[in-house]
Amino acid sequence: MPEYKAPQREMKFVLNEVFDVEQHYQQLPGFEEATADVVEAIIDEGAKFSERVIGPLNQSGDQQGCHFENGVVTTPDGFKAAYEQYVEAGWPSLPHKPEWGGQGLPESLGIVINEMIGTANWSWSMYPGLSHGAMATIEEHGTDEQKQTYLTKLISGEWTGTMCLTESHCGTDLGMLRTRAEANDDGSYSLTGTKIFISAGEHDMAGNIVHIVLARLPDAPEGTKGISLFIVPKFLPDADGNVAERNGVACGSIEHKMGIHGNATCVINFDGAKGFLIGPPNRGLNCMFTFMNVARIGTAIQGLAHAELGFQGSLAYAKDRLQMRSLSGDKNPEGPADPIIVHPEVRKMLLTQKAIAEGGRALCYYTAMLVDSASHATNEDERKDADTLLALLTPIAKAFLTELGFEAANHGLQVFGGHGYIAEWGMEQNVRDSRISMLYEGTTQIQALDLLGRKVLMTQGESLRKFTKIIHKFCKEESGNKALKPFLKPLAEMNKEWGNLTMKIGMKAMKNRDEVGAASVDYLMYSGYVTLAYLWARMAKTAQEKLDNGTDEADFYKAKLSTARFYYERMLPRTRTLVETMSSGADNLMELDAELFSF
Amino acid sequence: MPEYKAPQREMKFVLNEVFDVEQHYQQLPGFEEATADVVEAIIDEGAKFSERVIGPLNQSGDQQGCHFENGVVTTPDGFKAAYEQYVEAGWPSLPHKPEWGGQGLPESLGIVINEMIGTANWSWSMYPGLSHGAMATIEEHGTDEQKQTYLTKLISGEWTGTMCLTESHCGTDLGMLRTRAEANDDGSYSLTGTKIFISAGEHDMAGNIVHIVLARLPDAPEGTKGISLFIVPKFLPDADGNVAERNGVACGSIEHKMGIHGNATCVINFDGAKGFLIGPPNRGLNCMFTFMNVARIGTAIQGLAHAELGFQGSLAYAKDRLQMRSLSGDKNPEGPADPIIVHPEVRKMLLTQKAIAEGGRALCYYTAMLVDSASHATNEDERKDADTLLALLTPIAKAFLTELGFEAANHGLQVFGGHGYIAEWGMEQNVRDSRISMLYEGTTQIQALDLLGRKVLMTQGESLRKFTKIIHKFCKEESGNKALKPFLKPLAEMNKEWGNLTMKIGMKAMKNRDEVGAASVDYLMYSGYVTLAYLWARMAKTAQEKLDNGTDEADFYKAKLSTARFYYERMLPRTRTLVETMSSGADNLMELDAELFSF
Repeated sequence: MPEYKAPQREMKFVLNEVFDVEQHYQQLPGFEEATADVVEAIIDEGAKFSERVIGPLNQSGDQQGCHFENGVVTTPDGFKAAYEQYVEAGWPSLPHKPEWGGQGLPESLGIVINEMIGTANWSWSMYPGLSHGAMATIEEHGTDEQKQTYLTKLISGEWTGTMCLTESHCGTDLGMLRTRAEANDDGSYSLTGTKIFISAGEHDMAGNIVHIVLARLPDAPEGTKGISLFIVPKFLPDADGNVAERNGVACGSIEHKMGIHGNATCVINFDGAKGFLIGPPNRGLNCMFTFMNVARIGTAIQGLAHAELGFQGSLAYAKDRLQMRSLSGDKNPEGPADPIIVHPEVRKMLLTQKAIAEGGRALCYYTAMLVDSASHATNEDERKDADTLLALLTPIAKAFLTELGFEAANHGLQVFGGHGYIAEWGMEQNVRDSRISMLYEGTTQIQALDLLGRKVLMTQGESLRKFTKIIHKFCKEESGNKALKPFLKPLAEMNKEWGNLTMKIGMKAMKNRDEVGAASVDYLMYSGYVTLAYLWARMAKTAQEKLDNGTDEADFYKAKLSTARFYYERMLPRTRTLVETMSSGADNLMELDAELFSF
Repeated sequence: MPEYKAPQREMKFVLNEVFDVEQHYQQLPGFEEATADVVEAIIDEGAKFSERVIGPLNQSGDQQGCHFENGVVTTPDGFKAAYEQYVEAGWPSLPHKPEWGGQGLPESLGIVINEMIGTANWSWSMYPGLSHGAMATIEEHGTDEQKQTYLTKLISGEWTGTMCLTESHCGTDLGMLRTRAEANDDGSYSLTGTKIFISAGEHDMAGNIVHIVLARLPDAPEGTKGISLFIVPKFLPDADGNVAERNGVACGSIEHKMGIHGNATCVINFDGAKGFLIGPPNRGLNCMFTFMNVARIGTAIQGLAHAELGFQGSLAYAKDRLQMRSLSGDKNPEGPADPIIVHPEVRKMLLTQKAIAEGGRALCYYTAMLVDSASHATNEDERKDADTLLALLTPIAKAFLTELGFEAANHGLQVFGGHGYIAEWGMEQNVRDSRISMLYEGTTQIQALDLLGRKVLMTQGESLRKFTKIIHKFCKEESGNKALKPFLKPLAEMNKEWGNLTMKIGMKAMKNRDEVGAASVDYLMYSGYVTLAYLWARMAKTAQEKLDNGTDEADFYKAKLSTARFYYERMLPRTRTLVETMSSGADNLMELDAELFSF
């Protein structure tokens, strides 16, 4: 089992050296307290908790899984105690509003913590992770009374939260959902229906569970315009806000799944459960988008997490495992064979994981800083710009990084050869755990339609132009920088190509809407590779500056440049295929009648 | 759980219409009995056995797994009974020599059966599958006495066989193995050592298990030149050939693995076990190559198997599951939503699986027919040519098809959305089961070195030229065929490019041997895509001919042309990236010092 070690040097490189996060925070009113020292201390403490408390529970959590009996879910040994420590340390309150008990720190710092706890133990991290989305929703749309009753308890970590959307017949297509909410005389509602795939829907770690539930009012219009949002607690609070009467909500079963065994994926039955409307009636889906954006960035981190964990495990193995000789001459002549890290294809698998983890980290932090700006920038234009960029980058980060995270996890397994398939090494768990990330919070295919259809084409390319302008400006500013030339030339070309491809698809889509769908996943992946190329160029720039100015960490910065080179020469060329396939048109997908797919 | 249905129409299309297998058999002395009727009957019976007997045990086998207690392995419910039926029907004897009880049918027909039983239940199929390799080895290298004693029992299916190569410290690098064999006075040997990853190494399905074991004689030279091959039965046979005394070989434990839970992966301890030398001393690795080639083609089928099973499962789901409306207008206006097969990206995942399964089938059969010719062709030159082509195509088929099979299995899961992650649907099992195929029988990386280093460069490109000439001839012969133009143009170009790329890498490798390793996996995948393009062009040609000549199966042939078009427009462009990355040189992989991969 790989023993997780938080890559603090890497994290600080991105936060402090590439993005100058201190300056970013100082410009945002309310975040002035997030100084470099605070950032340092939080990383340090988060690393300790992740490495010492929850990392060691990752493999045992997978092996034990969650158990269900008579409506009660028991989490794996140690999970509950770890959660108590987490709450005692005040972690749940970090990025939330001081008026409800939060520490008021930036969302981007929360993301840094999420990275560490998620990499150490993704299953465990989902219990507080789901709460975070519930908090965001109540913070944004709840009444003061709802905030007082529920948000304070979620922020303290005393209670946890969930997100109850999916029903067995609808996941993507929420307009079809059937759970009903009928008004009671006291202003509350009675909810009846069954939700599935409710992560952390039932467990033994906290005193209460606050479900955020999508349901229909009796007179609601059909489809997505008739969905409302409700708070449905497992235990109804009494007048003092303490848990009292058990509500009519119960876990019916938990799923047997490929991975994330330590997290309970529940069927939740609402049987006349008392709920409280949150936000305006029939506007539930809109309110829920608050939740979804946070959740999608949270899931993007999962790509980074599995890439990092796989990298750490397979790097250690590749240095240790002796097998065959280097083709270019013995590298370990005293030993019976060379360590497998001498073999080019092993290095390729390691460097791919490294480039995904480090590039993915930069993308997650970059996106999270946009969340900070979208909510806290001093002027409206800045907030709007940040929001537009965030809308563009969220589906890219979610889908692209989880696809690459799964790829990386598989490389990690592959480095181990046959041993990678065996449970004790932990690499196959890393693959199984990562596989869910391309499915939940909107599949890769749904993210791709969101990106190309809604975010790019529906804005007439405005959001994309905002981002390509940033890249263009960077390329122009650095055009005199000789050391960066191998990066800037392809980056500038693809940045231009990105716009051209968008135009071409947009033109075709005017004649046939299926052209959008047919290009969408290739377009999203292409966008991801160009976005990561921009961030790798920025990292290369920073590393080169440090080397030019003299540093006692030359090795670190040289490794960064080397990884950037690897990304540009070995991964970015994937765009060449994507350009061809996304331009090949919808006919090759649509011409075959559904009945003729098999005989 | 997808219910496996043998795709008989597809199988017959490739065998009869594309490759004219009857004519192929008629030209090979000894195979005259394999008429079209015999082929038909065997497919028909194999389909029944696969669909009705072992397919239904696939999911329960995964859930129950194998159990180990006190050296005894219990296989999942129904496995033993199914094996009895298999033996009664005479399946084990199909492609083996009549003088030892075999039916003397061609290897390629055995492969057709392997496809069906492997797709229905891969874990189960590995029990007879491992026997097959043991039989091939004894057939080729054993004495008549060994054949009488062991081969007849393996061919009848009364006993099963294994392949004991790997030790915990060496898998790829067999030169390091430590198991020792000391000569006894009676001409037998005493073997001592521990082997790991022994598939079907211990079980309750047959009366005896015949281990083929690699070990060192006391005076053996170091490395690969000091390895000998032994027969070590679990029970020593008495003078009449019946099982008698228990030998000093025992299962120490079974592995907990990601998938193929129904197959026991064993640690096998040899504790002064009595063994019998097979083949000349110190030539064990050479003898073992017989075994490995058969095993590698057997594993190539696994790629096809998981692609087919994933395709069948996800196609049924995609036609049934209603979710969202088509972007180009409602396709199921009476229903609450359209079946998801209307969405272009769902179709892309289905067509990718379909193109891999059908193309993979053609590649497996093509390779298997080379096995027939290599052993049975009337003249030496033909046998040698077939052998050279087989040597070239074996690593391609093994590595390329298993990589694509894993990709396909993941698409199958993805079509199900969140439900794909849940065990009951069977799609996550298909992914887990398929993951082993890129590891055992030589990883993708090892196959790639074998292909580029040993098979192509070490023969100065002779084996490659033999194959590119075949493709060139096909392109030339069909050059007047207008309907094939969209296929022939890219095929002819890439066929030429294949040679050029090989030359370029060969030149670079003369200066730096690491250039071979650095290009190898990309080169192998490139080779796979071009090979499959050739086979898809041949399938397109056959389909077009049938349509031109008039047929009452026009839909079938049109679907074939459509899938060929999909392959050429949506999959073959992957070569564009591979050309760039394989040409990017070794430096971007080798420049970073091993110690600087992390900080």
